[in-house]
Amino acid sequence: MDLYEEFLKRVQDIHRLGALQGHLGWDQEVLMPAKGAQARGEMMAWLAGQRHQQLTDGRTGELLSALEDANLDADQAANVREMRRMHDQAARLPQSFVETFAKARSEALVAWQEARSASDFEAFKPSLERLIALTREKIDLLGVTSTPYDVLLDEYEVGMTVEDYDPLFAGLKARLVPLLQAITVAQSSTPDPSLPEGLRFSVDAQKVFCKAVSANMGFDFEAGRMDASTHPFSAGLWPGDTRFTTRFDEADPFSCLYAVMHETGHALYEQGLDHEHRFTPRGGAVSLGVHESQSRFWENQIGRTQAFWKAALPWFNEAFPDAPTWSEVDLNQLANRVERGFIRVEADEVTYNLHVMIRYEIEKQLFNGDLAVDDLPTVWNTMFKEWFDLDVPEDRLGCLQDIHWSMGAFGYFPTYTLGNLYAAQLLEAMSKDLGDIDERVASGDWEPMLAWLGPRIHLRGSQVTPAQLIEDATGSPPSPEPFLRYVEEKYGALYKLG
Amino acid sequence: MDLYEEFLKRVQDIHRLGALQGHLGWDQEVLMPAKGAQARGEMMAWLAGQRHQQLTDGRTGELLSALEDANLDADQAANVREMRRMHDQAARLPQSFVETFAKARSEALVAWQEARSASDFEAFKPSLERLIALTREKIDLLGVTSTPYDVLLDEYEVGMTVEDYDPLFAGLKARLVPLLQAITVAQSSTPDPSLPEGLRFSVDAQKVFCKAVSANMGFDFEAGRMDASTHPFSAGLWPGDTRFTTRFDEADPFSCLYAVMHETGHALYEQGLDHEHRFTPRGGAVSLGVHESQSRFWENQIGRTQAFWKAALPWFNEAFPDAPTWSEVDLNQLANRVERGFIRVEADEVTYNLHVMIRYEIEKQLFNGDLAVDDLPTVWNTMFKEWFDLDVPEDRLGCLQDIHWSMGAFGYFPTYTLGNLYAAQLLEAMSKDLGDIDERVASGDWEPMLAWLGPRIHLRGSQVTPAQLIEDATGSPPSPEPFLRYVEEKYGALYKLG
Repeated sequence: MDLYEEFLKRVQDIHRLGALQGHLGWDQEVLMPAKGAQARGEMMAWLAGQRHQQLTDGRTGELLSALEDANLDADQAANVREMRRMHDQAARLPQSFVETFAKARSEALVAWQEARSASDFEAFKPSLERLIALTREKIDLLGVTSTPYDVLLDEYEVGMTVEDYDPLFAGLKARLVPLLQAITVAQSSTPDPSLPEGLRFSVDAQKVFCKAVSANMGFDFEAGRMDASTHPFSAGLWPGDTRFTTRFDEADPFSCLYAVMHETGHALYEQGLDHEHRFTPRGGAVSLGVHESQSRFWENQIGRTQAFWKAALPWFNEAFPDAPTWSEVDLNQLANRVERGFIRVEADEVTYNLHVMIRYEIEKQLFNGDLAVDDLPTVWNTMFKEWFDLDVPEDRLGCLQDIHWSMGAFGYFPTYTLGNLYAAQLLEAMSKDLGDIDERVASGDWEPMLAWLGPRIHLRGSQVTPAQLIEDATGSPPSPEPFLRYVEEKYGALYKLG
Repeated sequence: MDLYEEFLKRVQDIHRLGALQGHLGWDQEVLMPAKGAQARGEMMAWLAGQRHQQLTDGRTGELLSALEDANLDADQAANVREMRRMHDQAARLPQSFVETFAKARSEALVAWQEARSASDFEAFKPSLERLIALTREKIDLLGVTSTPYDVLLDEYEVGMTVEDYDPLFAGLKARLVPLLQAITVAQSSTPDPSLPEGLRFSVDAQKVFCKAVSANMGFDFEAGRMDASTHPFSAGLWPGDTRFTTRFDEADPFSCLYAVMHETGHALYEQGLDHEHRFTPRGGAVSLGVHESQSRFWENQIGRTQAFWKAALPWFNEAFPDAPTWSEVDLNQLANRVERGFIRVEADEVTYNLHVMIRYEIEKQLFNGDLAVDDLPTVWNTMFKEWFDLDVPEDRLGCLQDIHWSMGAFGYFPTYTLGNLYAAQLLEAMSKDLGDIDERVASGDWEPMLAWLGPRIHLRGSQVTPAQLIEDATGSPPSPEPFLRYVEEKYGALYKLG
C-alpha cells in the first residue's frame, strides 16, 4: 500500500471512532433512559481511549513524518497538517487521562441536567470541580507557553489567545455598551412590543412552522432529523445523516424558531461538506468559529429581518391560525426586542457578545487567576449585575444555564463571538456578489445564498486555516468592523437612533 | 496483567464493538433518515471488520489455548468456552468477507423495507440473491460436516441440525394439523367473535395501555425505551439501556399489545442479565431459542389468557373509553381467535409453528436443495395453499413479510419454535413452584413470575448450554410434550373440543 493510502485508512478509522462518539452523544441527549448513564459514560470513555490509542500510535507518527516530506496535493497536505496537530496534542495526553476525562464528562452532563432543572448549583459543584481539576491537569500535560487559559482557547480556535481576545472584546464592548444605552433610552419613551400574555403556540404547530423554515433554508430532511433536547445542538454524524435539536416553549414560538434557524445553519454546513473527503479533516468543518458563523448568519442576518418575516408570514399564519393578526413589521419587532435578559441563547445581537464576555472573564479567572468553584455563582451574579444591571434570581438563569462546562468545554464560548463577526463579514461580501440580500430573503428563494456559501465555506472543509478561509471568501482578513457596522445600522434603524 | 484479565479485557472490547453494532442497528430501524443508509452500511461493515479482527487476532487464540488448561471458576470457564467457539468460527471467515457481508446486509435491509411496502419482490430479489450467494460462500468457509443448512442452523442454536428439527417438526405437525382441523369444524358452527368494523383505537391510547402492561410485567422504563418501527424488535444495548419497538394499527389494538408483550419478554431477559458480567458471553443471553421462550412466555402463556384480561380490563377501559363493553371473556376470545392468516407474527399458537415450518422447508431447499430465488414466491405460495388452504394475494403478505432474510439470517426461524416449546415447559415447572399461575396473573401481581425466571434463566446468562439451562430450570430435558399438552388443553377448552 502506498504511504498516503495507509495514512488515509488510519485517519478514517480515527474519524469513525469520533463519529461514533458523536452518535452516542446525540443519543445521550435526545433519547437515552436515565439509568443508561453509567454504561454510556463507560462506552464514551472507551471510544475516547480507542481513538486516542490510534491517534498516538507510533506508526501514525512515522507516517506523518514521512508524508511531511512527500509531494502531496492540497487536500492531502491539509489532512497531514491537521493530523500532525491532533497527533502531537494527543501524544501529550496519556490514554488513562483521556478515558478518565471522557467518563467525568459523561457523569457531569447527567449531574448538570439534574442540577439545572432543580436550579441547584451545589448538586453540580462536585462534577464541575472535578472537570476543572482535570482540565488544569490537561493544561499542564499539553504544556503552557503563554498563559494557561491560552492552551484551552487554542483548542477551540487554533491560534487564538488571551492577547487576541482581550483587545477584541474591549473594542466590541466600547461600541456595544453605548449602543445598548442608546436603545435603553429609546425604549424608555417607546416600549418594545411584547407577546400578549396567555397566548399559546402548540408544540405540533411550532414543529410544522419550524420545519418549513428549515426546509426552505435548504435542510434536507431525507438526510437528517429534527428532535427535541434540553439544549439545542446539531450533530453532523456522517454523510446523509445530520441531526439537530430544538426546544419548545408554548408561550413563545420565537425561542424554537431561532433555535431551529441557528441549528439548521450548523446543519447546512455539515450537509454541505465534501463527502468525497468523509472521515478526514479535509472533509470536516474547519473550526468552531466558522461553524458558528453559519448558524448565526441564518439565525440573525437572515432570520431576524423584516424581509424574513415577509417570506415567512404565510407559513406562520397557516401554522398558528389563532395568533393575533401580526404584520411582518410586528413580527420583526417581536423578534428583535433588545433585552437585558438572563439567557445567552435567547439574547439579541446587541447583548449576546456581552454574555460571552462574562463567561470569558470567568474562565480566565478560573485558569489564569484563582477563582474557586465555590465563588463562581457570586462572581457570575456580581458581574451580571454590573454589566446588565440585573439580579440573577436563581442559578438556572445564571451560571447553570449552559451545557459547555458540564462537557469540560472551557475556552469554547469566545468562538461564538468569532462566529458573529464572521457572519456579518460574510453578509457584506455576499451582498457584493448577489445584490440586495433583503430582497432575496423576502422573495422566499434562499437557494442562491446557500449556493454562495457552498463553494466558499462548506465544500472547502479544512482545506485552509479559518482566517484564510474567511479572507478567501470575503476578500479581507477577519475583522470586527463589519459586525459593528451591521449591528449599529440595524438597531439604529429599529430604534430610530440619532 | 494476569492472563484471564488480559483475556477479559479483550472479550469486553469485542463485545463493546458488538454493542455498538446493536445500537446503530436499533437507530437504523427506528430513526435513521433515508439518505443515511449508505454511510450507515459502511459504518456497520467497518464495525464488523474491527470486531472480526479482534476476535481472530493471534493473541486471542494464544490466550484461549492457555486458559483452556488453567484453573478457572464456572463463569470464567463459560467465557472461555463461548469465546473459543466464536474465535474458531470467525477464524474461518476472512475479514474482507465479513465486511462485504455486513455491507450487503445493510443494503438489503433498506431494499427490503421499500420492497415490502410496495409488495414488490422483484425490487428485493437482487439483494436477496446476493445475500444467499454470500451465505453459500459462508457455509463453504465454515466447513460442511453434515448438510450445508446445518451450518446455518448451528449458528443460531448451537448443536441443532436438520436431523433434530425434521422429526421435531414432523411430530408437531402430526398433532397441530388435527387440532387445527377440529377447531375449523367448531368454527363452522360457532364463528369466532371479531372486532366490529370501523372501530378506531388511537395510537396515543394504545401507547398508554401497552406501556401500562409492559411496566406491570416489570419492564423498567427508566432503564429502557419503547419506540415504533416497521418490524417490532428488542435490543439490549447495554446495562441500563434496553429498548424495544412495536407497531400501531388503529383498527386493531391486539396487534400492538402482543408485540409489546412479546418484545417486553425479550427485554426483561436483557434487563435481568447479570451486569457484573457485562460485555462477556457469561453476561449475555444464552441462545435465540431461550430468548424466544421469554418473549413467548409473556405474550402467550401470560398474555393470551382470560386471567390476563381480568387484570388488564381496567387499564383497557381507561385507555379506550369508547370501546364496546367487553368482558374478560370477550377480550380473551378476541385475543385467541384461531385463523389461517398470512402473517407469522400475528398468528395464533396453533398455526404459528406451521408458519415457521414453511420458512424452514424453503431455507432447506435453498441451501440443501436447488431452489432458485426466482421461484421462491411460487414455492411459498404453493406451500401456503397446501398447508393453509389460502391464496397469497401479494408478496407483502407472503415471502416479503419477515425481516430475517434481508438481514442474512437464514436458519433463524426454527429457534422460534424452540422458544414456544421452552415457554410451555417453563410454565409447567413454574406452576409446580408457584401454584396456579392463572390466579397469580389475574391478581395483577406478576412480580413472583419474573422473580422465578430471574435466577433460573436471566441471571445465569451463558453459564451453561441452552438445553442444560432448560433442564436445570424445569427438571427435565427440552421436550415438545409440554407445549402440545398446553396447546391442546387451551384450545380444547376455548373451542369446546371433544
